[in-house]
Amino acid sequence: MLDALFKPRAIAIIGASNNPYSIGNIVIRNLLEHKFQGPIFPINPKGGHIQCLKAYKSILDVPDEIDLVNISVQYKLIPSVIEECGKKGVKFAIVHSAGFKEVGEEGIRRERQMVELAHKYGMRVFGPNSQGVQNADPEIMAYANFTFVPMKPGNVSIVAQGGGMGELLKLHLHKVGLGHRMYASYGNECDLTMPEILEYYGKDEGTRVIMMQTESFKDPKKFLEVASRITPHKPILAIKAGRTREGSVAVSSHTGTLVDQAAMATAMFKKAGVVQFYDSDEMIKTAIAMSMQPIPKGRRIGIITNTGGPGIQAVDTAVDSGLELSKWSDEGRARLKASLYAEASLGNPVDVVATAGPDHFHAAVDTLLHEDGVDMVMVYFVTAPFVDLPAIAKRLKDATTGADKPVVCVVCTIDKWAALIHQLRESSIPVYEFAEDASRSLAGMSRYHALRARVAGELRSDLGVDKAAATRLITAYQGKDEYMSQMDAFDLLAAYGIGVPKRAAIKAPGDVAAASAKVGFPCVLKVESSKVIHKSEAGGVVLGIGDVKALQSAYDAMRGKFGPEASLLALEQKPAGREVIIGATEAPGLGTLVMFGLGGVFVEVMKDVVFSVAPLTDREADEMIGGIRGEAVLKGIRGQAGVDLGAIRDLLVRTSRLAADFPNVVEMDLNPILTYPAGQAPCAVDVRIRVR
Amino acid sequence: MLDALFKPRAIAIIGASNNPYSIGNIVIRNLLEHKFQGPIFPINPKGGHIQCLKAYKSILDVPDEIDLVNISVQYKLIPSVIEECGKKGVKFAIVHSAGFKEVGEEGIRRERQMVELAHKYGMRVFGPNSQGVQNADPEIMAYANFTFVPMKPGNVSIVAQGGGMGELLKLHLHKVGLGHRMYASYGNECDLTMPEILEYYGKDEGTRVIMMQTESFKDPKKFLEVASRITPHKPILAIKAGRTREGSVAVSSHTGTLVDQAAMATAMFKKAGVVQFYDSDEMIKTAIAMSMQPIPKGRRIGIITNTGGPGIQAVDTAVDSGLELSKWSDEGRARLKASLYAEASLGNPVDVVATAGPDHFHAAVDTLLHEDGVDMVMVYFVTAPFVDLPAIAKRLKDATTGADKPVVCVVCTIDKWAALIHQLRESSIPVYEFAEDASRSLAGMSRYHALRARVAGELRSDLGVDKAAATRLITAYQGKDEYMSQMDAFDLLAAYGIGVPKRAAIKAPGDVAAASAKVGFPCVLKVESSKVIHKSEAGGVVLGIGDVKALQSAYDAMRGKFGPEASLLALEQKPAGREVIIGATEAPGLGTLVMFGLGGVFVEVMKDVVFSVAPLTDREADEMIGGIRGEAVLKGIRGQAGVDLGAIRDLLVRTSRLAADFPNVVEMDLNPILTYPAGQAPCAVDVRIRVR
Repeated sequence: MLDALFKPRAIAIIGASNNPYSIGNIVIRNLLEHKFQGPIFPINPKGGHIQCLKAYKSILDVPDEIDLVNISVQYKLIPSVIEECGKKGVKFAIVHSAGFKEVGEEGIRRERQMVELAHKYGMRVFGPNSQGVQNADPEIMAYANFTFVPMKPGNVSIVAQGGGMGELLKLHLHKVGLGHRMYASYGNECDLTMPEILEYYGKDEGTRVIMMQTESFKDPKKFLEVASRITPHKPILAIKAGRTREGSVAVSSHTGTLVDQAAMATAMFKKAGVVQFYDSDEMIKTAIAMSMQPIPKGRRIGIITNTGGPGIQAVDTAVDSGLELSKWSDEGRARLKASLYAEASLGNPVDVVATAGPDHFHAAVDTLLHEDGVDMVMVYFVTAPFVDLPAIAKRLKDATTGADKPVVCVVCTIDKWAALIHQLRESSIPVYEFAEDASRSLAGMSRYHALRARVAGELRSDLGVDKAAATRLITAYQGKDEYMSQMDAFDLLAAYGIGVPKRAAIKAPGDVAAASAKVGFPCVLKVESSKVIHKSEAGGVVLGIGDVKALQSAYDAMRGKFGPEASLLALEQKPAGREVIIGATEAPGLGTLVMFGLGGVFVEVMKDVVFSVAPLTDREADEMIGGIRGEAVLKGIRGQAGVDLGAIRDLLVRTSRLAADFPNVVEMDLNPILTYPAGQAPCAVDVRIRVR
Repeated sequence: MLDALFKPRAIAIIGASNNPYSIGNIVIRNLLEHKFQGPIFPINPKGGHIQCLKAYKSILDVPDEIDLVNISVQYKLIPSVIEECGKKGVKFAIVHSAGFKEVGEEGIRRERQMVELAHKYGMRVFGPNSQGVQNADPEIMAYANFTFVPMKPGNVSIVAQGGGMGELLKLHLHKVGLGHRMYASYGNECDLTMPEILEYYGKDEGTRVIMMQTESFKDPKKFLEVASRITPHKPILAIKAGRTREGSVAVSSHTGTLVDQAAMATAMFKKAGVVQFYDSDEMIKTAIAMSMQPIPKGRRIGIITNTGGPGIQAVDTAVDSGLELSKWSDEGRARLKASLYAEASLGNPVDVVATAGPDHFHAAVDTLLHEDGVDMVMVYFVTAPFVDLPAIAKRLKDATTGADKPVVCVVCTIDKWAALIHQLRESSIPVYEFAEDASRSLAGMSRYHALRARVAGELRSDLGVDKAAATRLITAYQGKDEYMSQMDAFDLLAAYGIGVPKRAAIKAPGDVAAASAKVGFPCVLKVESSKVIHKSEAGGVVLGIGDVKALQSAYDAMRGKFGPEASLLALEQKPAGREVIIGATEAPGLGTLVMFGLGGVFVEVMKDVVFSVAPLTDREADEMIGGIRGEAVLKGIRGQAGVDLGAIRDLLVRTSRLAADFPNVVEMDLNPILTYPAGQAPCAVDVRIRVR
């Protein structure tokens, strides 16, 4: 339990000083200024007073029990400090000090020693190289952190790896008059981990929204597990930093190089139902909306303006953000007509016109909120000098209070009328400066709704895989870190019910007849040898072999060319089909990521691929298929029949299960898989599988 | 000349009133409060005083000459008002009043009558249904407009169709302490047009940056011409409103449906060198940077931070925005090392660390500004309580003053340190709240640089087209608004040097031998009949005809099926090649838009097409080829040879010239064009051309 960290009954500050620029001093000032509800004990070897508080020479001299210490002494002094804290029975140590993992090997060793020492006393370590924690619960008011944004109670909890980004997130809540709930900037994460903090926020009743920023995942699996438990009842908004798209999708269609940390984060977020953001301002503005307004139950937006041009801009930005424009019912339209000026536009956006007064705004918002086809409302308001602003704000409050759909405002005004903005925000209506911000915030909320509303997928239990056969095949390669032979690889896929061509090894001329009986015609003859990299160019693939004689002569030629050591393989030749690729790659700390895309240029040029965490449910497989831009190609275009999407789903599920069942299968590349209209099973005609 | 509008010596307000909510009253207040430098004459039939000014019963009573009137009387009174203004010798009438084009046919007639009347007196009309103009030139200070954002001198001039968007643009300059230069919200554009205003801004020495927003183009050709003259020496930033991507690229590969207003705007902006934006906040923030800082000469960014996490976010957003991360020279790195704290990171971003002082920031900025590999600098500054903020701002000013590369700041701080932001802005350094804003602003600036730095393309004079033959072919269809026959369409393309298959009409069995001699084998037989829509499905296309006998029997079968009226055509069958599409569609008021894309799914699924205004220079054609995501496919992927891009450029230039030479060719669709590696000419194997 993290109560001792976030709800400490007493805090000691080790490294307390009267130097106003020292971390120890700033933490004390922050605690005092924000009226921490427990005692604060500065620790300084010289004793005396720090600010208004008596300082103790050692924590062991403190008369009370201490839950939490903030440590900002030099790293060299840390072992002795930890020792003393342990003896005192301290439960949590926030280590601000640097000089650990971030400086390399020696720092990592220091971290390990510090944690071992702390654990000896049952104490946990937060950090090091961290900024600290805050809890704005009015009964706690712990600002155990050395930053500068003032704290007031709110319902958004924040967890950020770095202090600078954490501060930015707090700052922009503060700027719109919102506080936050809990805050943690966890730095090096040597002991207490981000998922533990997340879990604590998830259980905290005062936390309505969680915002997180991370540069790395120390324990991706734990993160996935914890986040998945939280998102059904509480939104998590997340940014994975350091994901420059430059590096995120490499040019090759080779699965291994397509997987990276950014793709892993996106796959985890999607699986866990976390709303991912790339822009910090967009995440913050969505958190603000979620903090004040209910989550929409769809993505249909109704827009109300009092001037035309901004209404058009609002429509453009809403559609860009993935929202749909609502249509009103005849009744709704009639009500708008009856309530608004004759010059008003009654479409979407509703233009109530510049002279509209309080009751016009009320009627417009109230009407849209009662429309079945409206999931959310944006009001774009340019202040006019001839209307009663406080009354408009009041009537907007009346219309929105208790509504189960979100309403956000864009207000275009100057300082002299800024009271309007405060009045709206006091009424729990978010106010933005631009239609872009309002649209993206509403879209962010609706993305959360869509994630939460997903049908709970179940892992299929009817796959009927032959795990024993698969185990036998894989065990032969265990520990070798090399590619399976084509025959073994096809057999492995077949054991998991994945369609592969009929196949037969031809070791000697005498095998040709039996092989052709097995694979039929037309068939393909292929060489497999670690010496032959570009098979086709080297003459190692012969297609369209039509009869035994042709197979025999192809065999003779290839054997002559590649020698007695090369494996030669006859394969059933499948008819041309729509190509797709399924890949699987080890994602360290998480398991395996499955990749899906169309073949060729769609992957190489269009970078049109998606990743998910194995194993996949049917729903997740469907999401992958629907997640590529090229889905329309699979569904059939220009009058061509579509391919069997259910069969592709089945392949994805089976491949993901295979990857999940055998973590030492670190790479699979089914490329291409030929797919066909319903009734004809897809077939993975080329495959590479690497076992560690 | 628009001096009488933007630099009026005297203004009369027709419809002046003491009702503080009336437009006439507000315009007078705005003029008075902003100290208009000439006399103001309220006109009111009752006489008396309006605010502190004597009111005249008629403009004819005013003793002085009047350059400009603001008219806000009811539309019914307008004819008599215009008549009086004309008699008085007024030069410009701003008509705020509504009741014109926006209400339909009758309003359009009213507009026309008003303009005719005004022109009789040599007077010009601005509006109607408009908000007015402003000029913040200290020698003018004309706020002849009824909105509320306070005016102060600046160097950004604004032209917006709608008043609400115009107000938004002014507002956000105002919020960062910038003024503007001139402003015009032109409403219905019945007489004075947007391009005329643009041209005036272009010539105004006090205007450094132009921001524009429009919903429609009344005279696209004029806009293109004017804007093209301005952008080489002055940036124009533009938003075309009402361009929802939903509607902008239709699903069909048919050129006609792919062209729309949004595509036309984008093509014009590109041709004219106008920097296009979709988000209003992004445009405004770029204008702010351009107003204060020099234009970068490339897109390589150097980032300086004093804290790690925001630095990573800055890198992500910079790369997302299309910027490249700079690399420093060894000398630069050595200078950073010598000037900064030992813990500083010397890569990109440079992390000067939280304790960095004024000289550290100065050294970092100064070093990067002197690096050849740096085109622009972003400083991301999280205020720390232990540093001297005014001194840091001062040293940032020292480092940036007189620099020929832009420097922008992101400052993360709270109100108590807001003086830092003001100090930086006073020093002409833009300050943003988010790295996203800084990155996009710098990227917007570098997009302007790239547009301005383009090699001036020349229209080719060596095309050697047979315009006479083309004229003959087209004249036969003039006025019919129908599709040309395949034979004529191919002949037309051939007259412009566009590769088409050898072809021969077969009217009777006896023509088969001659036709086959002309087209060779293999060949294709095709039916052409307005009754046969889906030729292939109807058996109207036979491919791969190998000899005369086969052609004869294909002819007999097809003639039997489609009857004696159908035209049957033998065509040379070209080998398979990489498909591209070139289209051309009439763009009313502008000329013709040329479309380019890869064939099939690239257009239909990926919507990967670009548009340009005909005729094209070589450079513009190259830009089109480089403008599709699928360019890599043409250049050759997976070891396949690339196709001849020079030949595609030539085709684009020729097609665009044909479209430009014959405006009554309202639709061309060369789909597909088969392209090949260099040495083998591309060929448009199917074509549709419509003549009006």
